[in-house]
Amino acid sequence: MGRIICVGLGPGDPELMSLRAHRLVREARHVAYFRKAGRAGQARRIVEGLLHPDCVEYPMEYPLTTELPADSPDYIAQLTAFYDQWTERLVTLAQTHDVIVLCEGDPFFYGSFMHMHVRLRGQALVEIIPGITGMSGCWTATGTPITWSDDVLTVLTGLLPEAELARRMRDSDALVVMKTGRNLPKIRRALAAAGRLEQAWLVAHGTTRQQRVQRLAEMDAADCPYFAIVLVHGPGPA
Amino acid sequence: MGRIICVGLGPGDPELMSLRAHRLVREARHVAYFRKAGRAGQARRIVEGLLHPDCVEYPMEYPLTTELPADSPDYIAQLTAFYDQWTERLVTLAQTHDVIVLCEGDPFFYGSFMHMHVRLRGQALVEIIPGITGMSGCWTATGTPITWSDDVLTVLTGLLPEAELARRMRDSDALVVMKTGRNLPKIRRALAAAGRLEQAWLVAHGTTRQQRVQRLAEMDAADCPYFAIVLVHGPGPA
Repeated sequence: MGRIICVGLGPGDPELMSLRAHRLVREARHVAYFRKAGRAGQARRIVEGLLHPDCVEYPMEYPLTTELPADSPDYIAQLTAFYDQWTERLVTLAQTHDVIVLCEGDPFFYGSFMHMHVRLRGQALVEIIPGITGMSGCWTATGTPITWSDDVLTVLTGLLPEAELARRMRDSDALVVMKTGRNLPKIRRALAAAGRLEQAWLVAHGTTRQQRVQRLAEMDAADCPYFAIVLVHGPGPA
Repeated sequence: MGRIICVGLGPGDPELMSLRAHRLVREARHVAYFRKAGRAGQARRIVEGLLHPDCVEYPMEYPLTTELPADSPDYIAQLTAFYDQWTERLVTLAQTHDVIVLCEGDPFFYGSFMHMHVRLRGQALVEIIPGITGMSGCWTATGTPITWSDDVLTVLTGLLPEAELARRMRDSDALVVMKTGRNLPKIRRALAAAGRLEQAWLVAHGTTRQQRVQRLAEMDAADCPYFAIVLVHGPGPA
């Protein structure tokens, strides 16, 4: 019986992959990864040039991404069917082979694999390889520590309502905001309401050649790439 | 002119080091690391067997750790002198050589290197290599994702007052508590006050051979190793 091994690939720079991730990816004969239809996929891009010539690839293409609201019945039905079908396919494959599922960042930290992880319970041997998170890559890019001493760090997603974002931004030393994209105008308003906008950085494509580090207050709101994180550094010792 | 490169080594398992960290450590001719006097040091232990035969080691031994309260004038004076002296020594060395500073976890996330980082500003070329955080290693060890969907994650340290810990524990989906050690009884009381004790896990020495994963409520309060983190998983999608 094979295993399904979800491998965290780190923030984007292939050299920031762990030795274990690198070994598993090079040895793999069956590799699956999520991507938007018509795109290469961020996880797949990180392993470019590493896969064995005999490796079979299984691109798991989302049936939709932002075409419908994520809470609409049609969106939920289509995504549910998508995760169910791919879970079944990987379980079947894992009866005879190891299957590597590629995941950017750290799989257990807001990872897309979670939707399959809950479905795989009791159906296959599952292993998770942790990775350097996208946020670690981004705060390292700013050249300043995100936390030290007794700093409190709050990690939020741009999915939360504006008032809740503002309340939590006011109440934390350091901040990380994930899932920015189209939520960026809301995140920006919440930071301003919390009096934190001047301290905020936007880091896009952290650790890759496309890396951009900017003060959020100075950037054009319409110009936010998808792989971006908003950061506020903690003050450290008083 | 050389550089001072602070290399994040990850949570403990040497195979979870990044390819870049591994390369820099193997090539290093000058390696510095913090440790308690008389101990091997956690960072040094992770690179055991990897250092070049000609590599010169600089163990930076803390003049004291828990012998005095961290806010006492004597503690502060001794630590300040210690960081000042080592900063000067590394700056001198970096005028002619690259110096690798070993750091467990991710250097910019509650890393001990921070005290030197602020002192090195303008005095040497400094580079930081991110690593897998100790907390990623620990939540991976529990077999359950720490966050997904719109979960809020709060990272706290056991240094905070009990009432503040409890308030923040009540107000977050997922929790990570760093710097446990002798603060564990306080952390435990705060979790109980917040109604979260039954959900809490203690993970010690995550990803190493000494790894222990236990429900906090079921463990003996006197029996907490130093490298331990307390976790509460987020509930994920409703």
